[in-house]
Amino acid sequence: MKDKLVVVKIGGNIIENESLIEKFLMSFVKIKDKKILIHGGGKTVTNFLKKINVEPKLVNGRRITDNKTLDVVAMIYAGLINKKIITKLQKYNCNSLGLSGPDCNTILAKKREVKKIDYGFAGDIEKINKKFLKQILDLGICPVICSLTHDRKGQLLNTNADNIASKISIELSKKFNVVLNYCFDKSGVLINNQKQDIISAKDYKKLIKKNIIVDGMIPKIENCFSALKNGVNEVYIGNHQIINNKKNCTKLTL
Amino acid sequence: MKDKLVVVKIGGNIIENESLIEKFLMSFVKIKDKKILIHGGGKTVTNFLKKINVEPKLVNGRRITDNKTLDVVAMIYAGLINKKIITKLQKYNCNSLGLSGPDCNTILAKKREVKKIDYGFAGDIEKINKKFLKQILDLGICPVICSLTHDRKGQLLNTNADNIASKISIELSKKFNVVLNYCFDKSGVLINNQKQDIISAKDYKKLIKKNIIVDGMIPKIENCFSALKNGVNEVYIGNHQIINNKKNCTKLTL
Repeated sequence: MKDKLVVVKIGGNIIENESLIEKFLMSFVKIKDKKILIHGGGKTVTNFLKKINVEPKLVNGRRITDNKTLDVVAMIYAGLINKKIITKLQKYNCNSLGLSGPDCNTILAKKREVKKIDYGFAGDIEKINKKFLKQILDLGICPVICSLTHDRKGQLLNTNADNIASKISIELSKKFNVVLNYCFDKSGVLINNQKQDIISAKDYKKLIKKNIIVDGMIPKIENCFSALKNGVNEVYIGNHQIINNKKNCTKLTL
Repeated sequence: MKDKLVVVKIGGNIIENESLIEKFLMSFVKIKDKKILIHGGGKTVTNFLKKINVEPKLVNGRRITDNKTLDVVAMIYAGLINKKIITKLQKYNCNSLGLSGPDCNTILAKKREVKKIDYGFAGDIEKINKKFLKQILDLGICPVICSLTHDRKGQLLNTNADNIASKISIELSKKFNVVLNYCFDKSGVLINNQKQDIISAKDYKKLIKKNIIVDGMIPKIENCFSALKNGVNEVYIGNHQIINNKKNCTKLTL
């Protein structure tokens, strides 16, 4: 029997809100199974760029990461947010370790090729170091992974945190029974303002066709189905209460 | 026989200079023994504070760490500098892991008591997690530790990197034969502009009495002698060439 592993990805709105992150972490530490937390930085980066007079560049909601932006991304993700989370988790006796892609080659990526748009230092994931992550989990440590990767040629890269959560869950599903939770600002996938309890792959295809699921929700849900198709046991999308209350989320099924 | 462990602390001037850090890291990766790198952030923090219109506060060269300064310290140390170093080390096939005090409780500290001066969120070291550091070293991984600590009550703290290097070397000297290197902008301890090959504890007492060793060099050398008195085998102070060329440094002896 494989051990259970709970993977949780938290989004910007939780990170930016002191009281929400506190509530979330207090329920996260109560998970008795092995667990991994994954985070980006959301609007904190945009707000900080403005503070230092660097104009944030986004195309269709996706960040263009130039050199200055990459520095700020590294500062906010691996520095400010990651260390605040680790410090809070230790307070609650959850022994945690902050990781970024370059740390022990946790996430190897390739700089995105320039086609129509030059995304700058954006990385597409090539390889997850599952051996190292398993070593850490087996030591009883909770990895807290920020969405930075590297190309092993000396270049740090900015990478989508949803994608990291999906890829890590898939790789570790060879060793564990993985439950993946995407935690964002809504209590699940809403259709006509109605929270859906379950969305199947079949439902999803229909909803896409009818233009009911659009924009940023598409890659998020694609990551969910990719995880399910590649070995992950269960996938949920919900709000900061996702761990305690599965009523506050949508379950994705094949 | 205990294994050899090389501990190197690098100072601000190396970190701030792209070509110096590259040269330093290229010689650091050639160390075949187990090794640990320790860094702070030096002037990068001061420069950044000015950029976001926060006045850096220093008393006798020591930083007063208020809330905003602590955020910048976390961003620069654990984010920008640590991740750049790790990314470069991985390029040279040196498998490294970035750590700060809260990560796996590597360094537990206590907020400095307010006496004459309120240093804000400055931490004095209480405990090093040598068991975890040994586990990481035994996995063939090089820890790269930035000078942040925590109090295990949820508070991140800013801590002197020289002091961290000394305390970690002392703790690990129970498990390893430790050689500690303090790497800064000069090729050793200078007296009347003459680089000293050796300074003994006896010499040091005389030099202090005569006011020849003053200011910032005093706590640095105190850290060296404290290490030697508490189990560390060898201690050197020198410039970025300290690893290759022991002529470019001063050896401290009891």
